[in-house]
Amino acid sequence: MEWIGRKNILIVGLGLMGGSYAKALKRLGFHISALDRDPEAIAWALREKIIDEGCAGMEERLVREADTAVFALYPGAFLEWITQYQHLFQPGIMITDVTGVKSCVVYQIQDALRDDVEFIAAHPMAGRETSGVQNSDDRIFRDANYIVVPTEKNTPKAIEWCGVLGRLLGCGKISVLSPEEHDEMIGFVSQLTHCIAVSLMTCSDNTHLADYTGDSFRDLTRIARINDRMWSELFLMNREPLLRQMDLFLKEMTGFREMLEKGDTEGMREKMRLSTERRALFDRK
Amino acid sequence: MEWIGRKNILIVGLGLMGGSYAKALKRLGFHISALDRDPEAIAWALREKIIDEGCAGMEERLVREADTAVFALYPGAFLEWITQYQHLFQPGIMITDVTGVKSCVVYQIQDALRDDVEFIAAHPMAGRETSGVQNSDDRIFRDANYIVVPTEKNTPKAIEWCGVLGRLLGCGKISVLSPEEHDEMIGFVSQLTHCIAVSLMTCSDNTHLADYTGDSFRDLTRIARINDRMWSELFLMNREPLLRQMDLFLKEMTGFREMLEKGDTEGMREKMRLSTERRALFDRK
Repeated sequence: MEWIGRKNILIVGLGLMGGSYAKALKRLGFHISALDRDPEAIAWALREKIIDEGCAGMEERLVREADTAVFALYPGAFLEWITQYQHLFQPGIMITDVTGVKSCVVYQIQDALRDDVEFIAAHPMAGRETSGVQNSDDRIFRDANYIVVPTEKNTPKAIEWCGVLGRLLGCGKISVLSPEEHDEMIGFVSQLTHCIAVSLMTCSDNTHLADYTGDSFRDLTRIARINDRMWSELFLMNREPLLRQMDLFLKEMTGFREMLEKGDTEGMREKMRLSTERRALFDRK
Repeated sequence: MEWIGRKNILIVGLGLMGGSYAKALKRLGFHISALDRDPEAIAWALREKIIDEGCAGMEERLVREADTAVFALYPGAFLEWITQYQHLFQPGIMITDVTGVKSCVVYQIQDALRDDVEFIAAHPMAGRETSGVQNSDDRIFRDANYIVVPTEKNTPKAIEWCGVLGRLLGCGKISVLSPEEHDEMIGFVSQLTHCIAVSLMTCSDNTHLADYTGDSFRDLTRIARINDRMWSELFLMNREPLLRQMDLFLKEMTGFREMLEKGDTEGMREKMRLSTERRALFDRK
């Protein structure tokens, strides 16, 4: 299997996302190699045959042979890796990533990168509240939104290539956003929702309520099981957009609280009607 | 089919919940009759054979013949109905309800009720973000929590009877709470979550983000499609407990916002770890 002339895919960082990429792309017949610091992750992936080759730590040959690289590292680790190992890339290799924040990553990587190598950022809007390659699952991409995040440095060819990758993974809708648009959007639809879920779980000792809860509470707090290292890093790297979204939400909810206190039924109903109308647009089409 | 000597069940208010009760209990072989103001609802339920008899408005015979009555009305309408029609009940009829708030309903109904009739309040923690008998579905009870809410006026026999009803509906766990405990709990696990979902949908014009959203946002806002008349009534009838829960949540989230602004990574991670640990307890067992 090739697409737009590529067939040897290197995955750097074999966790939940890296593993899910491996599964989806291996199934299509690509040659998949992987690097990860954790020997267990590599051993597991080889045993499960979701990668063809892999190494815990560095094996230069795997980097040299790749015509495509997918980085599924924490943002800080990504830049370090590029600085240290980019001399190993073959000219013309296409690089993409899965990082959940963009402005503070994409420009730095592109600035640091060799001229004969292109990095096109992407973000599949998919995940799980678990981590580790053992929990990877390429069904998370099914019908998911996939966002290509180019800068002025990217070529039309790379943007198209990256969109095709999204389709190959199984994503349903491919969009293109600038890094700044992406981060504002992600601050709202992903990061703010995680802040809310965490605050709901920690605002009082509610563990005795587990016996009484219904599906609405379960749904709202599913994402309250959260990888604290990854998400705190993502929040800090998107601090300004996220603070803006938190302030909008806190102001709105405080306003709703005032309506309740004053007994302003019509005000509350109007908010509920607006909410109902808007939410209808978010159902999967 | 009988249970503890009862077989003729009258459902008053044939909407989403009333219809779901009808479906579950008809399937078990009970004789089901229903009253609703809406002729369409009654006609639909007769056509679909989820009730045996029904009347739009009042048919006194249906009330006189019932040995069990389930009230699935808005809280205000429930008390009005009892005041107006309770003379029609046969002595010894057992009455229950599905109302989502308890303190401000249960005592009033019990005070107004004839001495030869018992009302035992209950609340199945199940629902849908739609309304109307046409959307009723008895699968909502499967494994759901069911809460019996007795007062000092209730007999042990009625409490047991009501728990059996929950089992017959298909609920998984039957609990007993006082009206005050119930309302504090419901303020947190249900009403607060609905306030959050509504505020999230209304805090900014986010409709253009529908193309990019992932499952976490969809899950968090599923309940933002909300019956504005019913929920505003429920919020107002549980105002004090709900305000307390909103204040706890707003304070917690404001604190998290401060941590983010100050770059207090360790503080955020600690909250996330607590959240993760607590949330694990809420998975369906």
